[in-house]
Amino acid sequence: TRQTEDTTSDKEMHIKTTLRELLVYVIFLIILCIVTFAMTSPTLYYYTKVMSELFLDSQFPDTKNTFRGMTSMADFWRFSETPLMDGLYWEKWYNGRNVSQNELGYIFYENKVLGVPRLRQLKVRNDSCTVHSDFQNDIKQCYDVYAKSIEDKNPFGKMNGSAWTYSSESQLKGSSHWGLISTYGGGGYVQNLATTMEKSKIIIADLKQNLWLDRGTRAIFVDFTVYNANINLFCVVRLLIEFPATGGAIPSWNFRTVKLIRYVTAGDYFVLACEAIFCLFICYYIVEEVLEIKRLKFSYFKSFWNILDILVIVISFVCVIFNVYRTIKVDKMLTDLLKQPEEYPDFEFLSYWQVQFNSAIAILVFLAWIKIFKYISFNKTMTQLSSTLARCAKDLAGFAVMFFIVFLAFAQLGYLIFGTQVKDFSSFPSAIFTLFRIILGDFNFHELEAANRVLGPMYFILYVFFVFFVLLNMFLAIINDTYSEVKADVSSQQNEFEVGDYFKKSYDK
Amino acid sequence: TRQTEDTTSDKEMHIKTTLRELLVYVIFLIILCIVTFAMTSPTLYYYTKVMSELFLDSQFPDTKNTFRGMTSMADFWRFSETPLMDGLYWEKWYNGRNVSQNELGYIFYENKVLGVPRLRQLKVRNDSCTVHSDFQNDIKQCYDVYAKSIEDKNPFGKMNGSAWTYSSESQLKGSSHWGLISTYGGGGYVQNLATTMEKSKIIIADLKQNLWLDRGTRAIFVDFTVYNANINLFCVVRLLIEFPATGGAIPSWNFRTVKLIRYVTAGDYFVLACEAIFCLFICYYIVEEVLEIKRLKFSYFKSFWNILDILVIVISFVCVIFNVYRTIKVDKMLTDLLKQPEEYPDFEFLSYWQVQFNSAIAILVFLAWIKIFKYISFNKTMTQLSSTLARCAKDLAGFAVMFFIVFLAFAQLGYLIFGTQVKDFSSFPSAIFTLFRIILGDFNFHELEAANRVLGPMYFILYVFFVFFVLLNMFLAIINDTYSEVKADVSSQQNEFEVGDYFKKSYDK
Amino acid sequence: TRQTEDTTSDKEMHIKTTLRELLVYVIFLIILCIVTFAMTSPTLYYYTKVMSELFLDSQFPDTKNTFRGMTSMADFWRFSETPLMDGLYWEKWYNGRNVSQNELGYIFYENKVLGVPRLRQLKVRNDSCTVHSDFQNDIKQCYDVYAKSIEDKNPFGKMNGSAWTYSSESQLKGSSHWGLISTYGGGGYVQNLATTMEKSKIIIADLKQNLWLDRGTRAIFVDFTVYNANINLFCVVRLLIEFPATGGAIPSWNFRTVKLIRYVTAGDYFVLACEAIFCLFICYYIVEEVLEIKRLKFSYFKSFWNILDILVIVISFVCVIFNVYRTIKVDKMLTDLLKQPEEYPDFEFLSYWQVQFNSAIAILVFLAWIKIFKYISFNKTMTQLSSTLARCAKDLAGFAVMFFIVFLAFAQLGYLIFGTQVKDFSSFPSAIFTLFRIILGDFNFHELEAANRVLGPMYFILYVFFVFFVLLNMFLAIINDTYSEVKADVSSQQNEFEVGDYFKKSYDK
Amino acid sequence: TRQTEDTTSDKEMHIKTTLRELLVYVIFLIILCIVTFAMTSPTLYYYTKVMSELFLDSQFPDTKNTFRGMTSMADFWRFSETPLMDGLYWEKWYNGRNVSQNELGYIFYENKVLGVPRLRQLKVRNDSCTVHSDFQNDIKQCYDVYAKSIEDKNPFGKMNGSAWTYSSESQLKGSSHWGLISTYGGGGYVQNLATTMEKSKIIIADLKQNLWLDRGTRAIFVDFTVYNANINLFCVVRLLIEFPATGGAIPSWNFRTVKLIRYVTAGDYFVLACEAIFCLFICYYIVEEVLEIKRLKFSYFKSFWNILDILVIVISFVCVIFNVYRTIKVDKMLTDLLKQPEEYPDFEFLSYWQVQFNSAIAILVFLAWIKIFKYISFNKTMTQLSSTLARCAKDLAGFAVMFFIVFLAFAQLGYLIFGTQVKDFSSFPSAIFTLFRIILGDFNFHELEAANRVLGPMYFILYVFFVFFVLLNMFLAIINDTYSEVKADVSSQQNEFEVGDYFKKSYDK
Ligand SMILES: [Ca+2]
Repeated sequence: TRQTEDTTSDKEMHIKTTLRELLVYVIFLIILCIVTFAMTSPTLYYYTKVMSELFLDSQFPDTKNTFRGMTSMADFWRFSETPLMDGLYWEKWYNGRNVSQNELGYIFYENKVLGVPRLRQLKVRNDSCTVHSDFQNDIKQCYDVYAKSIEDKNPFGKMNGSAWTYSSESQLKGSSHWGLISTYGGGGYVQNLATTMEKSKIIIADLKQNLWLDRGTRAIFVDFTVYNANINLFCVVRLLIEFPATGGAIPSWNFRTVKLIRYVTAGDYFVLACEAIFCLFICYYIVEEVLEIKRLKFSYFKSFWNILDILVIVISFVCVIFNVYRTIKVDKMLTDLLKQPEEYPDFEFLSYWQVQFNSAIAILVFLAWIKIFKYISFNKTMTQLSSTLARCAKDLAGFAVMFFIVFLAFAQLGYLIFGTQVKDFSSFPSAIFTLFRIILGDFNFHELEAANRVLGPMYFILYVFFVFFVLLNMFLAIINDTYSEVKADVSSQQNEFEVGDYFKKSYDK
Repeated sequence: TRQTEDTTSDKEMHIKTTLRELLVYVIFLIILCIVTFAMTSPTLYYYTKVMSELFLDSQFPDTKNTFRGMTSMADFWRFSETPLMDGLYWEKWYNGRNVSQNELGYIFYENKVLGVPRLRQLKVRNDSCTVHSDFQNDIKQCYDVYAKSIEDKNPFGKMNGSAWTYSSESQLKGSSHWGLISTYGGGGYVQNLATTMEKSKIIIADLKQNLWLDRGTRAIFVDFTVYNANINLFCVVRLLIEFPATGGAIPSWNFRTVKLIRYVTAGDYFVLACEAIFCLFICYYIVEEVLEIKRLKFSYFKSFWNILDILVIVISFVCVIFNVYRTIKVDKMLTDLLKQPEEYPDFEFLSYWQVQFNSAIAILVFLAWIKIFKYISFNKTMTQLSSTLARCAKDLAGFAVMFFIVFLAFAQLGYLIFGTQVKDFSSFPSAIFTLFRIILGDFNFHELEAANRVLGPMYFILYVFFVFFVLLNMFLAIINDTYSEVKADVSSQQNEFEVGDYFKKSYDK
Repeated sequence: TRQTEDTTSDKEMHIKTTLRELLVYVIFLIILCIVTFAMTSPTLYYYTKVMSELFLDSQFPDTKNTFRGMTSMADFWRFSETPLMDGLYWEKWYNGRNVSQNELGYIFYENKVLGVPRLRQLKVRNDSCTVHSDFQNDIKQCYDVYAKSIEDKNPFGKMNGSAWTYSSESQLKGSSHWGLISTYGGGGYVQNLATTMEKSKIIIADLKQNLWLDRGTRAIFVDFTVYNANINLFCVVRLLIEFPATGGAIPSWNFRTVKLIRYVTAGDYFVLACEAIFCLFICYYIVEEVLEIKRLKFSYFKSFWNILDILVIVISFVCVIFNVYRTIKVDKMLTDLLKQPEEYPDFEFLSYWQVQFNSAIAILVFLAWIKIFKYISFNKTMTQLSSTLARCAKDLAGFAVMFFIVFLAFAQLGYLIFGTQVKDFSSFPSAIFTLFRIILGDFNFHELEAANRVLGPMYFILYVFFVFFVLLNMFLAIINDTYSEVKADVSSQQNEFEVGDYFKKSYDK
Repeated sequence: TRQTEDTTSDKEMHIKTTLRELLVYVIFLIILCIVTFAMTSPTLYYYTKVMSELFLDSQFPDTKNTFRGMTSMADFWRFSETPLMDGLYWEKWYNGRNVSQNELGYIFYENKVLGVPRLRQLKVRNDSCTVHSDFQNDIKQCYDVYAKSIEDKNPFGKMNGSAWTYSSESQLKGSSHWGLISTYGGGGYVQNLATTMEKSKIIIADLKQNLWLDRGTRAIFVDFTVYNANINLFCVVRLLIEFPATGGAIPSWNFRTVKLIRYVTAGDYFVLACEAIFCLFICYYIVEEVLEIKRLKFSYFKSFWNILDILVIVISFVCVIFNVYRTIKVDKMLTDLLKQPEEYPDFEFLSYWQVQFNSAIAILVFLAWIKIFKYISFNKTMTQLSSTLARCAKDLAGFAVMFFIVFLAFAQLGYLIFGTQVKDFSSFPSAIFTLFRIILGDFNFHELEAANRVLGPMYFILYVFFVFFVLLNMFLAIINDTYSEVKADVSSQQNEFEVGDYFKKSYDK
């Protein structure tokens, strides 16, 4: 954005320039908001919701447990035998009649399952860790926590077929996955399911009978993608069950609802037009900033607002490029896929980047909103407030450092004392977030007390006393004191020329 | 209300006038409170509670699911076959004996079902949206999200009877309904149930067997009205199951407990008397305000209190008129209804406006309470406080603007990042409310974390730091600083003549 | 307490006096704390807990519902047939063997059921209300909300036996009960159960078969008392199911765990000694205050501390008298009871007053603690703080009035808008408490939103903005400002003689 | 740490010294953090989680209750017959095939059960309390609340075998346990289970048939230890069911996940190296402090930082010694144990002290973090903040005393009024914690209301008003006022020489 400091001598000129810039900027912001609000809608949430309820909350017929509550390998088989089958294959109407042939393969009769679902497991070798010498006579095998380097790649069980022989990440064109316990590689032992419930049940029964999962198994992925033509959305589903080295099972899941095909309806084409305008704006701002950099050289980078400008432009640029790439890539994938309906189609990669793209856009809009403060800062009340913030920033920062040292000390204390017992303190970052949440009043005192009946309550009371009663009030004291100063300064100054005056003057003419 | 500024020179006179006005106003307020408190009682809540528990929390016999937890079309049939039938038709006592003939048709043996319940479904056409070219070979039908313009109005299934042929909104004398996903029209395919359980079960079995609900179905309404003569209340029940274009089912409900017949008991006639007095007061205030407007012309509208006066009068006026209309209308409806006991009686419209009427009255009372501040502002301590609020209003407003820009930026960021995963961020208004709730400590951190393990916690901590730690304290700084100023001003002034002094003086005489 | 103002000229003397008084007072406080802490222990809570879990959380065999979740008359019979019987009669050990004859009649094999349990129902007449003229052809009977004046006192059903004929409050020596919906009289239709499960089941089956509960029934009480000799505690149990005029059932309960026999063990006699000392203290303080009243006449009552003194004495006096009465009365009751093991023993009255006695003692201790501030106020830092509170009390009070007007306006608004739908707003007092809880962050936003999708969120945001953001900060501004003033005053004063100095001086001597 | 006050005249020298000390200290802190972070990891939490879910959340087949929800003796047998057996003995794979011989004895097929589990019960004598004279005819037996002195040590039931004869604490080499209700001795009636499910079931059936648990039973302990070689962790499990004298059952549990064997993998040996360096640091600091004490004599102990130094050293020293002891002891125990696989191995003692060791280390790190403030206090902004805290410390402390008197008065009031009904007020310390939690917004208003419909809400509102609205704001006022003063002081001072200047100067050279 053009530097306006050189015109401050001429106030009226300054205001005129600012107002014009503001106007242009507001149009830019509106276009940006249209583009982003068009990207999402409550429908996406409903899609995630109905899909996740279907697979996560359906009860196993015998134990009434659900996917969310899985605790053992046996639970995985219970899940795959009933809720997974009933969720994937809708072969009967509610009155018991079979659905017609061309209605097969739709979840909820609406969502086409693309290709076939896939099971994939990852194992570790049985010599992946050292048993302590005292136990070496009794315990012959040791399966470590999963790591890529100790993955088991040998055939096992029936020794043939992709389910029993290892396929590497590059063979599967997979990518690694950040689970709750570890980050898993993209390879593994792979078994595609079939397009009908009957065949799939046979496949699963066979796996179960031959002990496909054993002590070395560290994770199973269930992957599939559905497409809903009504609302033109893909839902890329990944169900993951991790088997930690401690025994037991930890389920997690990922329902990525994404709009991979963007331009179908008339509304979509309107958005396309907005996107084109957005690109023009980006070009305009690029040119402007380049000129300004040339003019101001190094001093350009000293202004917070200029850094923000560059950030906005860079993110915009990346997003535009990804958008083009995605459109091309998806088209290619779909063409391939529809030719081979019995293959597993890997939308994992694409949906992952689509989610990152959405996040980038979201941050872009946030920054664009913040930038608006650049323009409104010449109103007097606003000046007073923003200069309060600016003036106390240094003190606040200094205090924030003090605050966070105490905070981290408490976090580490909590992590070490309660870490083995309380989920919210089971890792160091969790402990930090938990302490933040305590300040807002969201905590579970009884868990702390159960974890350590003496130190739990003492820790809680000390923390509340020092951080909530004392330190938090320091923030207030700093802001309060600075505000008084600023207000005293402002009222002692002579009145500056303001926008209000400008409009009044224009009106008087 | 009479303008009292012109008499401020004569303090004693001023106070006398104010006190007299206050007295009149307090009587008005008491009358108003009597009228409103008579309108409602905890009994209304208990009525809503027992009716909603009966229909929403009764378990389906096989899956132990309830209406609240419905997730599919099959669940609707499970609901209608058991909890709906058991809820509507109480044909046996707890010891298994049949109830006598004239006790039939009462829910809980107490609440008369007026006429018969009605099922109504709305459908969309199967060509209501465009399938992307890549999928057009595989997917032949496309049922869009519900909109009035794409409603399916063709007969289907058995092709005869109101259940299979479309009735328009005007034929049904219906009105549109604002559901969770869309706003639905008042027409549709309609099936009345019978007055006995046996017949109703046959009707429902027939609908189920012939696939009354299909992929085009977007909503089913179950409507009925019950009347409890013991407490003279109607409960207008609407159960709505929406079938979004994503598949699945989203249940919602409406239990409007309303007192449509207002004057039955002696107590009711006392309220009627109060209402008459209230009308007189309104007339009095109308005259007063009209006179004042005549006197002050345009400047009348510059005072906040005058605007409030007019608002109070207008709302009162509307409420009075509705009250009269409702009394007449209900009487007519009931006469018609009791002649045709096998028809569906539409209390939807009346109950909707009755609820609006209650809300209007509620707002009226709120405004009336606020107006009391006009009279108490001459006490010194009060002056000090209210002038603090008045003086910092501008700064607070300026700051509120800044605050809300940051707030909206965070809301949009949250909506875009978490919208597809987290219910509380699934729409823009929800995101705003959620951020408000975070400030008060009501939030679900784990959901944010599950939605995005990197951005979730970062977003939360940034928000809490900037909004809870920094911005919220600005409010305090502004109020704190202004209060100091005001107090300094007040103590430097000579003591004003106060109400306390007035009473003392009167007493001395 | 002796007035010490007259000695303030002589500081040292003053401090000596104060210290001596403080010493005496601390001894008094310790005695009081011993007495009160001896009255209660976590065992009482455990007793309440195991008894309430036994009756409230046991599932009905068919519907898996519990007493807490009862919604209809049928549920009452389910409760009385299984959980009530299994809870009252423990006639077998866990291995299936019968308990021996003299072990019969103990709940959990430990808690002796005193006498037999009693069922009592209250009914209203079928002509207790007016049916609106439009409905009079259809609805012949009308059972109003319970009130003592419209109680049905006619025999019904089998027409003989206490279960089917009315017994008045005086016949039953009962007392009225404040239920959730109404306050119920002490009379009614009464049925005692038997001492064995077999007989009791026959009684209940007979009541059920003959429709003991009908449309007129408004409440059933299940009353019994158990005594645990191990810990010498009574638990007086009252289960109440109210049948509102709306239909349905509202369960409530009362488990009063009380120590009616106070002096059994050695420890109890130590407490008795403390109580004796306490009585002496009370006498001492009565004398002191009487002397002071004589000396100071009317001006005595102007001091806050003197009022507090009198309050403490009066409450102490009442408690002492009740204690004596209870001891005598219980002894008499037990003697009577153990002679007639098949009668229902009414501990309702005694346990009610014992609970009131406990509350009175609790308030007494609270006041005694507050009184300690009288003595510590001569330390400088303390003075500074307490004079801050004293000085801003007037402003705070003035502001509190403003605050509560706004608060009440919001409460009434909430009550009228959400009252029919949301439990927390279903009565005016509830609405007030709910608004308080919102300030602390304990609320259910989704309920408000469900009750009214437009006004719900608006109400919430307005309330939070005005009350949480603005008004609450006024409290702070007032206190903050006053504290600055006080501190400035104090530091400008010359140092007063302090307690610290006194001790130093004594030490130097 | 070296006293640096003597060099303050020479500022540059001072800063140099401080920086050098800071550098050394930071290295010390890093070493300490490495050691402590190596001690724990989220894996420990997962181990606790899977083990506790297995035993606490498995449902009993008939009542669907779990260990957490146990309420009676019968529930204990239900637990021991199914969830305990299924949890301890994993003798079949999920496909029904038996596990091979050398895979027997592993929970989740991964966690070796060390030795055999043990049941232990504690009883009290039937004459352990006095029955009140009125009841002595009816109630012949009295079993008091558990206390060591009234323990029943007589043989009972089958009169032979360890299950029916008492073993003393020293015979069992046990230790006492702090339960929810009492502290239990280490002796009792002991029954070891077997290594196979079949044999264990026979043992349990025999105990049940012969009424092993009777009215005198006050607690049962189920103890066992598992070792996971994959991750080299022990989980020492203790399930405790207490039978209070009131009847009923109160379950509690203890899952101590500890790393008793510390040096197995390469990573462990790196930690060992760090621990060695840590020991060197401790020696260095011991020498330094000893020298300083010699130099400064008594005045050494007046500095807060010196006290902190000594605390850190002492805790470090204790921890080092325990670490050595543990390593030796565990090695010895394991050797013994693996020779006798059918004995119960008592890891209770060791795991208890390991947990205490972890807590000590945690506190050590916390103190070490706090000590860092000693070094950063020469930055100007920091000085301003820390001197604010220091200066208002006295006022804050004075106020905290006032605050806590009010607080304790409220706590005692709450305890006495609600103690018998509400868990959060069932003991005096609980009441204190509950009141703290109310301030943060974590409370259950409805429980208070249910406990006492009049005093409950009044108590709540009074507490919130006085403590949350008024007293809490005093904290703020104190800090706010002090900060203003400090800032005024600092800005009036001439600028001190700062670290920033030092670096600038060094750079200029
Ligand atoms: Ca809160």
